[in-house]
Amino acid sequence: MIDLLGILGYGVLIAFDRLAADARLSPDLHRRALLSEMAAAEVAHYRRLHDRLAELGADPEASMSAFAAPLDAFHDSTAPSDWLEGLVKAYVGDGIADDFYREVAGFLDEPDRSLILDVLHDTRHAEFAVTEVRAAIEADPLRAGRLALWARRLVGEAISQAQHVAAERDALTELIIEGYGDLTGIGTLIKRLTTAHTERMKLLGLNN
Amino acid sequence: MIDLLGILGYGVLIAFDRLAADARLSPDLHRRALLSEMAAAEVAHYRRLHDRLAELGADPEASMSAFAAPLDAFHDSTAPSDWLEGLVKAYVGDGIADDFYREVAGFLDEPDRSLILDVLHDTRHAEFAVTEVRAAIEADPLRAGRLALWARRLVGEAISQAQHVAAERDALTELIIEGYGDLTGIGTLIKRLTTAHTERMKLLGLNN
Repeated sequence: MIDLLGILGYGVLIAFDRLAADARLSPDLHRRALLSEMAAAEVAHYRRLHDRLAELGADPEASMSAFAAPLDAFHDSTAPSDWLEGLVKAYVGDGIADDFYREVAGFLDEPDRSLILDVLHDTRHAEFAVTEVRAAIEADPLRAGRLALWARRLVGEAISQAQHVAAERDALTELIIEGYGDLTGIGTLIKRLTTAHTERMKLLGLNN
Repeated sequence: MIDLLGILGYGVLIAFDRLAADARLSPDLHRRALLSEMAAAEVAHYRRLHDRLAELGADPEASMSAFAAPLDAFHDSTAPSDWLEGLVKAYVGDGIADDFYREVAGFLDEPDRSLILDVLHDTRHAEFAVTEVRAAIEADPLRAGRLALWARRLVGEAISQAQHVAAERDALTELIIEGYGDLTGIGTLIKRLTTAHTERMKLLGLNN
């Protein structure tokens, strides 16, 4: 449980960071303000996760820092080079992460179940990303190939870092295996995550 | 009035941006979260200024974008190279800006007077910066010289950009001159800003 709140806590802090950096890449002030507001929402999520960790008797900073290496590695290796890559990353990457946390939340008791569902990404962001990316591809269809390649790279990096976390954090891995009852549940989880990812790529107008 | 709300609006958006970037330079997660929370507060200020501009019948984005060039130029030419430079910049730079806006707010009617006083920087940030910088200088007194030099560069750049704004935005300049009644008031304003700046440098433990 501590591990789960810890990885989420570091994750929302990085999401804040990334949204703030993406805001800087915005083509205009309206979009910049929109992304800045989404970034600010992540900070409120951070505070809630922090306080819950403290309530559970954990050291919030230490619990979160434990996941700094894999999450930083993922984000450092997938720094978007422009506005569109940032949006695809947010939509595709956060989409997979949110699906995963939503599944895990199903195994938890309250108040942690609701806390986790609350701190998942704002659907406004997903809708915004889809609208922007579709419009950009319509304006220049050649962008689709480059962005699809980018999305595949994101997924590859995410899987690689998730494997690191799974290998190193037994408590987190056990929480998930116990939640499903056995290892075949993990297979089902991966299948569901993959299906949802394919759906998102379609919505963006990209080939998976 | 539109000009004043516009420059403040672009200013808080940049403050958000800069605090988010400074958060990334934090030596630990606790400080990082603290700066991220201050950054999030700026976004709420942005929204209030935006809505007031719309209420006054102005185009909020256009009113703010008019000040993008001088404010971006200031921040691009004074990008902190480390955590301490970031704190000195926030304390010294925001301090002067806040003093200036507080003076101007005195000439305004409600609701603009209160709006401007509300969106000035959080004093938490100033206290935090003073504590951190003093502790850092105590740990290594050689830092004081470098940081004092940095503060002087900040002030020089700020004056240079303020002159650009004053030369280009007649409405804003007139608002201030009318507020004081005549040009000697501007002299008094500059004197007050300088005195307060010297006080802040002393509090940081830096020579002006």
